[in-house]
Amino acid sequence: MVEGAALSAGRALREFGDVPLVTLEDLPQDGIVLPLGHIGAPTVSHEMLPSGREAELIRDTVERMLGRPVVAVMASEIGGGNGVEPLGLAARLGVPLVDADAMGRAFPEVQMVSTYVAGKDPGLVLLADVQGSVAALWPVDGLWSEQLARALCVAMGSTALMADYVMSAGELLGAVIEGTVTQAISIGRALEDAAAASETAVAALQATLGAVALLTGKVADVERRTGGGFVRGSVIIDGVGDCRGRRLQIEIQNENLVAIEDGQVKASVPDLIAIVDSQTADAVSTESLRYGQRVTVLAWPCAPLWRTPAGLRTAGPAAFGYDIPYVPVELAHA
Amino acid sequence: MVEGAALSAGRALREFGDVPLVTLEDLPQDGIVLPLGHIGAPTVSHEMLPSGREAELIRDTVERMLGRPVVAVMASEIGGGNGVEPLGLAARLGVPLVDADAMGRAFPEVQMVSTYVAGKDPGLVLLADVQGSVAALWPVDGLWSEQLARALCVAMGSTALMADYVMSAGELLGAVIEGTVTQAISIGRALEDAAAASETAVAALQATLGAVALLTGKVADVERRTGGGFVRGSVIIDGVGDCRGRRLQIEIQNENLVAIEDGQVKASVPDLIAIVDSQTADAVSTESLRYGQRVTVLAWPCAPLWRTPAGLRTAGPAAFGYDIPYVPVELAHA
Repeated sequence: MVEGAALSAGRALREFGDVPLVTLEDLPQDGIVLPLGHIGAPTVSHEMLPSGREAELIRDTVERMLGRPVVAVMASEIGGGNGVEPLGLAARLGVPLVDADAMGRAFPEVQMVSTYVAGKDPGLVLLADVQGSVAALWPVDGLWSEQLARALCVAMGSTALMADYVMSAGELLGAVIEGTVTQAISIGRALEDAAAASETAVAALQATLGAVALLTGKVADVERRTGGGFVRGSVIIDGVGDCRGRRLQIEIQNENLVAIEDGQVKASVPDLIAIVDSQTADAVSTESLRYGQRVTVLAWPCAPLWRTPAGLRTAGPAAFGYDIPYVPVELAHA
Repeated sequence: MVEGAALSAGRALREFGDVPLVTLEDLPQDGIVLPLGHIGAPTVSHEMLPSGREAELIRDTVERMLGRPVVAVMASEIGGGNGVEPLGLAARLGVPLVDADAMGRAFPEVQMVSTYVAGKDPGLVLLADVQGSVAALWPVDGLWSEQLARALCVAMGSTALMADYVMSAGELLGAVIEGTVTQAISIGRALEDAAAASETAVAALQATLGAVALLTGKVADVERRTGGGFVRGSVIIDGVGDCRGRRLQIEIQNENLVAIEDGQVKASVPDLIAIVDSQTADAVSTESLRYGQRVTVLAWPCAPLWRTPAGLRTAGPAAFGYDIPYVPVELAHA
């Protein structure tokens, strides 16, 4: 949903004006920050569009319940459409966007956030759906926030706008991954500069991210099923050019989880694996994969938080059911 | 769960003292009334007992959100354990119990309440589970309150305490079925008096309710499955004594929905169908039915509200998927 999110964010910016980019320190410390993102199966959000009122419903409910103003929006996850959409939502709500997120990437489950790893109470979780229903949850812990929010999201039609770990700017300090909006902007600039200089887009992206290229090839098979509020499956990419004769398999649950070649793990969560268009370097999201696409698979190190014991327990291979040890991508690829 | 609810209500009364029985008119008109009841599959609530803290969690959340005190508890449904449990919850919370409920019987779905038939907005719906998680819902309508609350209840373990149509005493006026606690007490007194006078318990119950006896027999077969937050199935009762040679089938969804003999509907929702022990006249709930039980099936007219067009749309045979016309029990049995 990156394209859809970019379109709706662009429209909101034209309609409501520019959005200041701020740090948590810039904000009134007792003001509420809304970490926003869509929960559900991305395949569903291609067909059922939001009403546009979801963010206002959540903001109004939070302010009524907490008696304090919402002073900023933050992306829950900087990856995919969820990294772009909060910009438009901040414009709609007339508040700044925090230059941070709670993942430094995308993850499929509610508890896979820096705030959970940092030991914060999930506090208040809100969901709003396309019909106009709103739900507020006070789960006993982060795992129950996933259980309850996922069940609600499925009942709401398998996609909903969610604000989780709703707390004040002061409480969020130190529990987010900072600078990720700035990083996203620098990626965009690097791609623009490469185009102007007639350089390869993928090479420019790789340099900006410090990423290794696992394979360049074409999509040979996609197996994907939508259920329980997720998209799960796997994709097979056959090498072309210098990579001819090689084959990479990537396991997915909304996001790319593990890349395997010849039975060897080449990269895995929590490190980042991205499938990008070999020509334009545009990200190809798991729900947009299709047979024959020419793609390059990049991998690069996650934020340091995810490599701590608590980070790996939350979003390492075992957290997704893979019985493999985590090997940092820079070592696996060396 | 009538026995369990009676035990826990009895204990709460001993621990926290008597509970005044009041009408809505007796209460401060802007004070909040909590209509409480368990949502879920009754079979599950036999195995997973509540923590006892659920009502306090709901009360505290409501008062924090609305900024007004909870002044009374009401039963959402007067049937089964849900009719008895609110007495103990009122004792725990130190507030009176309203002499009314929102069904005048038991119904399995969230929107099957007098408040919905009266056109009230579902407003605020709260659920609290045994773990200590709390959820608040603002569904767009009564049908979405069922969708969202049912999904949450399943995620919470298929049983949760719920307060729905949370509103002030003044707002509830005219949208409840009055006097149902008093009626329940009068049924209990009639059974005590019958025992003292060595009269038949079932005859005394029948006279108090104005009920017809559809059949006296024994349970020949029970088919029951728990799923989606409900118990569904059917029970076959073979006649004994004067009823020998006759067979009655009752369709269930948490409650008894339709009684059929020789292909003829003898009684159906929204009228009441109760299976009672032939000896003691104790109610045999759908989750307690078992082969060989000696039972009498009674049926009697529902509250007049359910016979209005809106009432029949909400809880008539078609609302449960039965393609049969509703015939009032006094006519079907005549």
